Amino acid sequence: MTHFNDLIDGYRRFRTADYRRQHERWAQLAEGQSPKVMVIACSDSRVEPSQIFDTLPGEIFVVRNVANLVPPFESDGGRHGVSAALEFAVTKLEVEEVVVLGHGMCGGAHAALTEMFQDSPPGDGGFVHAWVSLLDEARDRVKAKYGTGPAATREMELETVRTSIRNLRTFPFVPARETAGRLTIRGAYFAISDGVLHLMDEDGDFRPA
Amino acid sequence: MTHFNDLIDGYRRFRTADYRRQHERWAQLAEGQSPKVMVIACSDSRVEPSQIFDTLPGEIFVVRNVANLVPPFESDGGRHGVSAALEFAVTKLEVEEVVVLGHGMCGGAHAALTEMFQDSPPGDGGFVHAWVSLLDEARDRVKAKYGTGPAATREMELETVRTSIRNLRTFPFVPARETAGRLTIRGAYFAISDGVLHLMDEDGDFRPA
Amino acid sequence: MTHFNDLIDGYRRFRTADYRRQHERWAQLAEGQSPKVMVIACSDSRVEPSQIFDTLPGEIFVVRNVANLVPPFESDGGRHGVSAALEFAVTKLEVEEVVVLGHGMCGGAHAALTEMFQDSPPGDGGFVHAWVSLLDEARDRVKAKYGTGPAATREMELETVRTSIRNLRTFPFVPARETAGRLTIRGAYFAISDGVLHLMDEDGDFRPA
Amino acid sequence: MTHFNDLIDGYRRFRTADYRRQHERWAQLAEGQSPKVMVIACSDSRVEPSQIFDTLPGEIFVVRNVANLVPPFESDGGRHGVSAALEFAVTKLEVEEVVVLGHGMCGGAHAALTEMFQDSPPGDGGFVHAWVSLLDEARDRVKAKYGTGPAATREMELETVRTSIRNLRTFPFVPARETAGRLTIRGAYFAISDGVLHLMDEDGDFRPA
Repeated sequence: MTHFNDLIDGYRRFRTADYRRQHERWAQLAEGQSPKVMVIACSDSRVEPSQIFDTLPGEIFVVRNVANLVPPFESDGGRHGVSAALEFAVTKLEVEEVVVLGHGMCGGAHAALTEMFQDSPPGDGGFVHAWVSLLDEARDRVKAKYGTGPAATREMELETVRTSIRNLRTFPFVPARETAGRLTIRGAYFAISDGVLHLMDEDGDFRPA
Repeated sequence: MTHFNDLIDGYRRFRTADYRRQHERWAQLAEGQSPKVMVIACSDSRVEPSQIFDTLPGEIFVVRNVANLVPPFESDGGRHGVSAALEFAVTKLEVEEVVVLGHGMCGGAHAALTEMFQDSPPGDGGFVHAWVSLLDEARDRVKAKYGTGPAATREMELETVRTSIRNLRTFPFVPARETAGRLTIRGAYFAISDGVLHLMDEDGDFRPA
Repeated sequence: MTHFNDLIDGYRRFRTADYRRQHERWAQLAEGQSPKVMVIACSDSRVEPSQIFDTLPGEIFVVRNVANLVPPFESDGGRHGVSAALEFAVTKLEVEEVVVLGHGMCGGAHAALTEMFQDSPPGDGGFVHAWVSLLDEARDRVKAKYGTGPAATREMELETVRTSIRNLRTFPFVPARETAGRLTIRGAYFAISDGVLHLMDEDGDFRPA
Repeated sequence: MTHFNDLIDGYRRFRTADYRRQHERWAQLAEGQSPKVMVIACSDSRVEPSQIFDTLPGEIFVVRNVANLVPPFESDGGRHGVSAALEFAVTKLEVEEVVVLGHGMCGGAHAALTEMFQDSPPGDGGFVHAWVSLLDEARDRVKAKYGTGPAATREMELETVRTSIRNLRTFPFVPARETAGRLTIRGAYFAISDGVLHLMDEDGDFRPA
């Protein structure tokens, strides 16, 4: 079982190895970051973008939340964490690609499909229920077409990617940059059961990379 | 410059090396996740928890957003991404530790201290401004005591950790579990300039690990 | 500059990371080794088979000496280090492949081509001179055809592989197993200047992998 | 089971990751090598110095043979592989430390202790027998004191280190440099059963690092 003291051990390894070995890289990173890719992934402990994509420090700007969700553009002055990160990455850092990474065995997608926390108060599932309500429309489509079995589960997980990408495009600065050829949106899905990465094509279909 | 095709190359390395080599681990992870630690970190491309703590797949449940912020408990039925992740990690996965990891050269902390996006519309800095408003009280304290120089910048970055931890404890299930000895809250700060990790003590002071 | 104390630091990283992470593998290795490949490489600090081939503990049985040389079969009762390792790997461990790995900028090949240590006493170059005398015939062929320029240097380096493979086959148990389809001999060359691995074909020609 | 094609896969990982990531280092190495440490280790697939010491390309000059043995200085003009490597590393590369690394479950030490290949012809154990005859004196001491049980096995393995270090010092240039403070000889032992590295002190005793 890994606890915080194990993380400190890990930090010591990082300091004596990776950090020392990549001192040129870290010296550059101390000047500032200039990632070209933003990744929106799930908080699931098994879906670590830097591990699945074997990246180095400074290469990807990362947002992680339950079910890798992007809410739609809302100019209500409210606190929107994903919107803030997206705005910063695309309009300030000017990343050239945004990748939405879904995955198998997603607890958030499961909660959306089953509505298991429908009657749960905030603090006992209610927050998860409210958050995955972003998937309500998708869920209705999925249940109508696939019911609630394994096929529906997989489809629901793929819908987290399609829904987030749809919402990404409600932010005016996204389609504007896509049209100008300065930004590309990617969809991907990591199947935990067999460790295979799938890529989404223009039609929203996923195929093994 | 790393782009999506480089990430795909990285995935192929992951498949032929890490995934193959840790097949026992991945076989277990395919059964489910049971991380004992949740990490709340910044989206900054240089602050990758799994790299700084040298962790393995399945070891840490991760939330990443601008300035590693946790909003306070709000039972307004709204969509709260961090609250959903926190609720899921603590009450469903029952993690035993929550680590808030701040870092140096934080764009979010900078935006909070300088209020640089004060008059920016949503889509051009407005979302960042609204998001970091979670740091308004802290900013006022910092400016009153340190002004706006380098010392203020560092203090503002440390305040992102202290503020998030303060807000974490507004979720009833957090102090309840802390009292029961089932949950521990940790504060940490990664100084990008020299790669040194600092740990927060009970008084909220940070010292090199 | 890496010294022994740095190696001890490296060992501590190995203990807290690789060793712990691959405990199943190490538990198996504690039962015994059963590598399927033997690699004969140079002692050069830049030509580490486990790094170039990204192998794991237990995967390759390795001999390393100056210029990755294999002396011919000699039943004179003398102490033959390479012969002992080859005999043990092929007839006791029953490896299925033997790889001879040459490389660019090889000091041993250079000494063979230039005969720079021709008049040096043992302890000041004489041992190297005597050792690379295994390449005398090859050197004569190379100089006759390529002179002593860069082309000759590369050819001399490739000859270290061809010569060792020729000598490998003077050990009766090698051709016997090759004929029986139980052993395969491979030739490879790592060009340090550009980091490209070349593989030797049946004709003794080398092409990028 | 790892075969040559797996090594080629490993090479592709090396090319797209380590080589690319450490291009500054490789650019320097393309100029020449200047390791400060020479390691003499066993060919055993489980005792990879670069893995146990977590080293980088260019850091250690490595000799590997059965039982990490160093024959004594012999100026008979014969082909002495270890002598050539030692001469090159110490007098040409001017390494500052030579580490002899022994290990547990060593087949060579076992052969020396049991004399199992005493009557075996070259090609069926005879080469190993002749090679480990370097340990004859040590074996007699060990058997006289410990018999042939587990304690004797461990002692025999430690003797491979002590014997090699004793022989190292028969090369005039070794004690000369030790006296001048330009060279240090180290003894170490890796216990495969529990993965613990032991270091040898001045008295030839080994203790966990």
